[in-house]
Amino acid sequence: MGKKIVTIGEVMMRLSTVEKERFVQVDAMKVVYGGSEANVCISLAQLGLEAYHVTAFPVHDLGQAASNYLRQMGVKTDFVLEGEGRLGLYFLEDGAMQRAPRIIYDRFDNAFSKLDPARLDWEKILDGADWFHWSGITPALSQNAADMTLEALKVAKSKGIMVSGDINYRRNLWQYGKGPLDIMPELVRYSHVLVAGLTDFENCLDIQSDDFEDACRQAKKDFPQIKYITKTNRDSISASHNKLKGFLWNGTETLKSKRYDMPNIIDRIGGGDAFMAGLIYGLLHFDDQKAIEFATAASVLKHSIPGDANLVHLDEVMEVMKGKDIGKLKR
Amino acid sequence: MGKKIVTIGEVMMRLSTVEKERFVQVDAMKVVYGGSEANVCISLAQLGLEAYHVTAFPVHDLGQAASNYLRQMGVKTDFVLEGEGRLGLYFLEDGAMQRAPRIIYDRFDNAFSKLDPARLDWEKILDGADWFHWSGITPALSQNAADMTLEALKVAKSKGIMVSGDINYRRNLWQYGKGPLDIMPELVRYSHVLVAGLTDFENCLDIQSDDFEDACRQAKKDFPQIKYITKTNRDSISASHNKLKGFLWNGTETLKSKRYDMPNIIDRIGGGDAFMAGLIYGLLHFDDQKAIEFATAASVLKHSIPGDANLVHLDEVMEVMKGKDIGKLKR
Amino acid sequence: MGKKIVTIGEVMMRLSTVEKERFVQVDAMKVVYGGSEANVCISLAQLGLEAYHVTAFPVHDLGQAASNYLRQMGVKTDFVLEGEGRLGLYFLEDGAMQRAPRIIYDRFDNAFSKLDPARLDWEKILDGADWFHWSGITPALSQNAADMTLEALKVAKSKGIMVSGDINYRRNLWQYGKGPLDIMPELVRYSHVLVAGLTDFENCLDIQSDDFEDACRQAKKDFPQIKYITKTNRDSISASHNKLKGFLWNGTETLKSKRYDMPNIIDRIGGGDAFMAGLIYGLLHFDDQKAIEFATAASVLKHSIPGDANLVHLDEVMEVMKGKDIGKLKR
Amino acid sequence: MGKKIVTIGEVMMRLSTVEKERFVQVDAMKVVYGGSEANVCISLAQLGLEAYHVTAFPVHDLGQAASNYLRQMGVKTDFVLEGEGRLGLYFLEDGAMQRAPRIIYDRFDNAFSKLDPARLDWEKILDGADWFHWSGITPALSQNAADMTLEALKVAKSKGIMVSGDINYRRNLWQYGKGPLDIMPELVRYSHVLVAGLTDFENCLDIQSDDFEDACRQAKKDFPQIKYITKTNRDSISASHNKLKGFLWNGTETLKSKRYDMPNIIDRIGGGDAFMAGLIYGLLHFDDQKAIEFATAASVLKHSIPGDANLVHLDEVMEVMKGKDIGKLKR
Amino acid sequence: MGKKIVTIGEVMMRLSTVEKERFVQVDAMKVVYGGSEANVCISLAQLGLEAYHVTAFPVHDLGQAASNYLRQMGVKTDFVLEGEGRLGLYFLEDGAMQRAPRIIYDRFDNAFSKLDPARLDWEKILDGADWFHWSGITPALSQNAADMTLEALKVAKSKGIMVSGDINYRRNLWQYGKGPLDIMPELVRYSHVLVAGLTDFENCLDIQSDDFEDACRQAKKDFPQIKYITKTNRDSISASHNKLKGFLWNGTETLKSKRYDMPNIIDRIGGGDAFMAGLIYGLLHFDDQKAIEFATAASVLKHSIPGDANLVHLDEVMEVMKGKDIGKLKR
Amino acid sequence: MGKKIVTIGEVMMRLSTVEKERFVQVDAMKVVYGGSEANVCISLAQLGLEAYHVTAFPVHDLGQAASNYLRQMGVKTDFVLEGEGRLGLYFLEDGAMQRAPRIIYDRFDNAFSKLDPARLDWEKILDGADWFHWSGITPALSQNAADMTLEALKVAKSKGIMVSGDINYRRNLWQYGKGPLDIMPELVRYSHVLVAGLTDFENCLDIQSDDFEDACRQAKKDFPQIKYITKTNRDSISASHNKLKGFLWNGTETLKSKRYDMPNIIDRIGGGDAFMAGLIYGLLHFDDQKAIEFATAASVLKHSIPGDANLVHLDEVMEVMKGKDIGKLKR
Repeated sequence: MGKKIVTIGEVMMRLSTVEKERFVQVDAMKVVYGGSEANVCISLAQLGLEAYHVTAFPVHDLGQAASNYLRQMGVKTDFVLEGEGRLGLYFLEDGAMQRAPRIIYDRFDNAFSKLDPARLDWEKILDGADWFHWSGITPALSQNAADMTLEALKVAKSKGIMVSGDINYRRNLWQYGKGPLDIMPELVRYSHVLVAGLTDFENCLDIQSDDFEDACRQAKKDFPQIKYITKTNRDSISASHNKLKGFLWNGTETLKSKRYDMPNIIDRIGGGDAFMAGLIYGLLHFDDQKAIEFATAASVLKHSIPGDANLVHLDEVMEVMKGKDIGKLKR
Repeated sequence: MGKKIVTIGEVMMRLSTVEKERFVQVDAMKVVYGGSEANVCISLAQLGLEAYHVTAFPVHDLGQAASNYLRQMGVKTDFVLEGEGRLGLYFLEDGAMQRAPRIIYDRFDNAFSKLDPARLDWEKILDGADWFHWSGITPALSQNAADMTLEALKVAKSKGIMVSGDINYRRNLWQYGKGPLDIMPELVRYSHVLVAGLTDFENCLDIQSDDFEDACRQAKKDFPQIKYITKTNRDSISASHNKLKGFLWNGTETLKSKRYDMPNIIDRIGGGDAFMAGLIYGLLHFDDQKAIEFATAASVLKHSIPGDANLVHLDEVMEVMKGKDIGKLKR
Repeated sequence: MGKKIVTIGEVMMRLSTVEKERFVQVDAMKVVYGGSEANVCISLAQLGLEAYHVTAFPVHDLGQAASNYLRQMGVKTDFVLEGEGRLGLYFLEDGAMQRAPRIIYDRFDNAFSKLDPARLDWEKILDGADWFHWSGITPALSQNAADMTLEALKVAKSKGIMVSGDINYRRNLWQYGKGPLDIMPELVRYSHVLVAGLTDFENCLDIQSDDFEDACRQAKKDFPQIKYITKTNRDSISASHNKLKGFLWNGTETLKSKRYDMPNIIDRIGGGDAFMAGLIYGLLHFDDQKAIEFATAASVLKHSIPGDANLVHLDEVMEVMKGKDIGKLKR
Repeated sequence: MGKKIVTIGEVMMRLSTVEKERFVQVDAMKVVYGGSEANVCISLAQLGLEAYHVTAFPVHDLGQAASNYLRQMGVKTDFVLEGEGRLGLYFLEDGAMQRAPRIIYDRFDNAFSKLDPARLDWEKILDGADWFHWSGITPALSQNAADMTLEALKVAKSKGIMVSGDINYRRNLWQYGKGPLDIMPELVRYSHVLVAGLTDFENCLDIQSDDFEDACRQAKKDFPQIKYITKTNRDSISASHNKLKGFLWNGTETLKSKRYDMPNIIDRIGGGDAFMAGLIYGLLHFDDQKAIEFATAASVLKHSIPGDANLVHLDEVMEVMKGKDIGKLKR
Repeated sequence: MGKKIVTIGEVMMRLSTVEKERFVQVDAMKVVYGGSEANVCISLAQLGLEAYHVTAFPVHDLGQAASNYLRQMGVKTDFVLEGEGRLGLYFLEDGAMQRAPRIIYDRFDNAFSKLDPARLDWEKILDGADWFHWSGITPALSQNAADMTLEALKVAKSKGIMVSGDINYRRNLWQYGKGPLDIMPELVRYSHVLVAGLTDFENCLDIQSDDFEDACRQAKKDFPQIKYITKTNRDSISASHNKLKGFLWNGTETLKSKRYDMPNIIDRIGGGDAFMAGLIYGLLHFDDQKAIEFATAASVLKHSIPGDANLVHLDEVMEVMKGKDIGKLKR
Repeated sequence: MGKKIVTIGEVMMRLSTVEKERFVQVDAMKVVYGGSEANVCISLAQLGLEAYHVTAFPVHDLGQAASNYLRQMGVKTDFVLEGEGRLGLYFLEDGAMQRAPRIIYDRFDNAFSKLDPARLDWEKILDGADWFHWSGITPALSQNAADMTLEALKVAKSKGIMVSGDINYRRNLWQYGKGPLDIMPELVRYSHVLVAGLTDFENCLDIQSDDFEDACRQAKKDFPQIKYITKTNRDSISASHNKLKGFLWNGTETLKSKRYDMPNIIDRIGGGDAFMAGLIYGLLHFDDQKAIEFATAASVLKHSIPGDANLVHLDEVMEVMKGKDIGKLKR
């Protein structure tokens, strides 16, 4: 078992159309489970780390199924609780060509967002952890969820645990009376690695800039504990064809990954989470340049796998980074 | 086109397991749409009546798909509105043998329950109608839904339209501050045909009795406009094997249908709604005895059809009633 | 290789509903190929005989697929020709419980019915054959098909080959200007084993009777070459539950098989053809009583197998006849 | 509801292979319904118009299913009749890469082609209509179908309704004794918008030219009521990769759309019909240049959707026209 | 978490036919994982116990998938090892009606049977365990597997752990040079609860008898540590219809469960393992009579669930035991 | 019927993932049958030759299914035997984008490799044959398989039959004590057409070179009977996108085919076998340059077809060679 990672966040049932059908055509949908932070956690479990996810599910068999899925994919579910509330859902209409994929979220009142923060003993959860990861989705769900995150971050700080936060601003969330500027800055104050694009900087940290590196420098001024800020650039030629490149600002310069061409995308959901997981793995095991290359290559592989989670082995990411005989049959 | 029927109620997306899998095994689920009153409406459309359903869906493609489904199956959707709120859902785990089928409802905050009653012009909706059907599920959803039902009933009365109500008490509903005894008696006051079992009488009309006919007589005393009270007795040998018999109290006596043996059930959801539709059709076209026979035979056929709706032709019900060469291949 | 059998007849693409869906629900249909006489032929091939089927398909890849299917299931396709015309189709709506299965035929103008009889060299086809089987469907399709059958029968007679004919009267066929009484008696004149029920006797041979044995005796008087007349009695409790019993009149008495209970039918199409095949096999290898038992047991097994064809081994039929530990798991 | 559109034509059951299988591999086929003109009609219904389709189906549940499909997708079926004859079919083998898709038609004797023209009351059907659309497939099916088209066109003229005709020459049709030159010129005489390529001009209007604009000018001389002639150029790099560009001659010049690259085609059937629908919508709502851009973008989107019909919203077409962030996930 | 249970045994990939197809018809097969002892372990995990399974898988992604499946279904996989050798397989042809289900095993050289016994630290594995369960399949696979079992049993004895053994004689195994009589008696010597029928007694323990209770008494004489001997009687009316009854000899008398009728079997594989798990649970929590009732009811439920494992809750078994309103829809 | 071709080799059940799932995600797998030489044989049968495959299967229904599959696809199975041993298997994880497809072989102890060479009467098998094809996989399986191959080659030589051998070195085979250099040179000595790349030359013939033509010349020196050596170059941009070019050294020069771009690969397994079959067909019917063009075009088409076998018609290959309107819909 490798290093210990802890993540927190809602896990939803994902219902997706099959065979490129539109929502108005469906007769059946595929079922799997996912959520931004859980996707990161599964990815790290697959890469060999000891990965714990903290969440809550309603007390019924579909909640159980979601929990089982995490366990199946290697996540430690010791801190997966049962609670009141719904199982959050999202419906995915797969896209193709010039037709965009679409998501209909149906996640309000999910059990995780209603969880009493007092039920989580962060001293125990984070005991021995090497890394804690959260995202901006969690504090956007409910006051409870925002409170949990803050408590976790305080304990993480006291234990000297490395923290990453994926700012991930979503306008449709934040329905509980608070806005991102009320909540996010304090959470960012405890984080060493940020994922943030220009709109995230603006909406969550009130940092205006139209240059990534400039925004990073401003952020560092306000939040001096920040060590890395990262993002990907995704160029969307069509729903089936994107290009992807990773960026990592390490306080002094912005390192860039190779730019990958992806003309036959299978499933782009979770691509960003795969990147995040790859970056965490990379920063724990490699130098900065290799870390950003690893993260981007991991994200590229995700686009070839149905479902939210990046079910790949370490050596598969390594091979994509090498860039020779890509995709050649392995017997 | 036959007589004009109007129904009102929520329509949910139904997600059901396939190949007798349990919820913890699912990888995909079948998708169809249903709801008690809409099931009645589809059934009557299939039998050749001009059937309108009144409901509301959220403004997205799955709401559209639900509406399209009603239209596909012959329902007139002129009074299907768009509104704020969720698309209600229910998850069905198909049962088999000694293992019971299970439903997990996920319907709160659905668009229908949030519909402003003022958006429904009942004078127009009920213009020329021969029958109006409601169920006890609707007033259990929200004050708005209860108000809509009452308004509809008042207009129906003013127009001399025949009214049926399926009491259908569900303990898990009624979460908006009112109980069935606050609401149901007034609604029943406008209804001529009731579906009610002993627990329904008790919970919704405060009528205690352990005999159906006695309960009927008490109800008639309180609600003298009642013409018929009906119910089915379902004997559950296993999830795959039920027996079914219909009862119709017509103010003077309780007529009984044949008792049907159903040892190879395909899908029992909507069996009661198929009975209700059969009874409405029967009371509009046949004498009382034939009506109850027709209703029960229709319900039996429903158990052979996947989905909520009873997609059968008039002649198919007639043949089941005749009881000769049942199930023989038709070339 | 066992004895050589030759059959003739149309083979259709069968498109059937899945998961007990009705035609108005289908999104996909299963595809397989079948036809009464080809079903008999496949059945005999599975039992180890050298079985040739004579037919014709249109010159396209679905015609090829039909031909390939026969070959896959062990039928010799040396005399499967290509010709002008359609690939006949039939749509099957699977039944369940009290709901009858339904077939919509779409077979007119099929390539077999348009085949020029001169293209079939019966001397060669029947060379060394032990048995020739035809059915009343073929002469009902077209004058060409009726002519082919008659030619085959004449050659069979000249070679002393045993002949069976399944009268199989279908009112919806016979659209080419002739009726069964114009054609069938002459064909029956060359046949030693007949499958016929009372309506077949009446419609095809103008023999009125309401007693099977009496009808058999009348037939024997008119057609003295007849050795056996056989039929099954099917008692239809529901589409899912039938009872089956076989009868074999051997010129002196009517032998009866056990009566089988079939309360969980999977697919009843082809049950009669499986019986016919079983009877041919039985008469070739066993005494009369065992032959009728074998035929009925074979037919019973067919009801458990999806598709038209009875894909069973000899020992499986034998075990059903024995009647001990029926259906017990074989490891 | 938007403008009223009326279309006429046969609707077939489409049976297509799945997962890129060839016909010789199929075990199941997908079922949907389509036909050139009905595809146009559904497309316009999806874009918000009041779209009526005129056709006929046989009186069985598959005919009903076809009719239901039209209704499901928003088409008004008030003038869908029942009649004698078959349900036309077509089998589609999906192509991929350098392997071409293939269609086997099986449409002769369909109920629409046998419909008595007297059953259609065009005064009523076209009452209040803004546009009537027909295609060259209909008059190629039967004399009845040709007669119906002509009658419709005469009534349309008397009412001053805009008319479009998709010439769509198909060599395999025209089996009833007439050729396109006997029939098409008279029908074209009533049409204001034509879809025609060089072979259509030659075969249906006896106009020889190897230049589109020149052919248009010749057509205008013979048929002065023509306002627009349109076509697409499709460049087939492979079955999976086409390029598409639209052309619209408006009497004075040939306007051209952007050329779209489509390297991941999902289903190209109905691409031309989606273009036609887009053009009708465009000419009704936009200027000529925007109309041809809209039509081509609509057609491109069709290639991403399984089935014959272009199930897209107005805003989706608009976004493809804009050409920014194509295919980007919509949450 | 409840009591700690440890089981040992091979886990195979199960490939089963779908929709009642025969092996000669398959185009696709369902994949799940199972093995007699692992089935017991999953069953106990579902009932709430802390259940560890000891086995080994080859080092590839299908081995990983098998291990993940155990974890998904709640089994602790701390002692699931990786090793040389194959992933054992079994192919299941589902039966129906009079047609028996068939298994083709393909399990030789599986990784578990080749595992070096020295890799298992039984002191650690059995630390704190309440129960150890083994079956006669394991010692039949290889000398290594027999050795492992014996070592486990010795450590279990030293720790005073309750031991159950399912004799489960399989003639096709035992290919490594030893016979059951060489190996089984010594293993039985350490076991307190046996599953054994008359053929098991004879083949594995050399105890001849044609009476269960008599055989039990003989066994007790030879193996005085035995506390319970148990078995089920399965009456096979057909593959779809069995009857089941459980028997428990407790040293003084033979207790019997209710006899259950199962006329609509979904999947009978693992029925015996579900019984075993039920008995272990029962003996740990109930009195003897309730234990055998619980075991049999659990086994009955297994027959309704696809796959090897009995995925049921405690309360579901309890309800079947109660025997009222069996199979009634739970909302 | 065209020329007679004989091939020999193992046929495996292929179990492949669906919808781009990874092995750890599978719930079901597609089933088909294949093996390098049988793939060649099916391909030649599809092109119209009389193609016999020599192999052996175990005596169970899955062995029967494999044999039936060959027959279905047009292969003559007169010399397909039954024998002791397993049905070899291979598991295919389909790849996509930068993620490579993976094969897990599970073929040891297959019935073919255990076949007693004495059971094959090569005088009879090769009677009248025009071509015999073998591959380096067969002698790598077992001494028996190597012996069979040698015997076949000797008889082929005595009859003057053209022989091709696909060297096809696989490091994971050769487990029976011999290495390729012990066996392959003697087999090559009887072969006129070789498929060999540089690693094959080195491992199987001990010919070191880094230039194909140079290696060919060396081989010709050692094995003067060689007439042609051929290979393809595959450029792997990703699992979904390869480029392919064929090379044919004819003793004097190396002829090259067009280079094909394949950016939407459906199934690349069997691409090499399709090339081999194309080359055999080409050398039998065309000049050298056309032969290598035909072989490469055939291989390209294979990449569009699911399964191992290249199910294409002669005219389809011809059209790809022509290179105009590639992939255009055929009505």
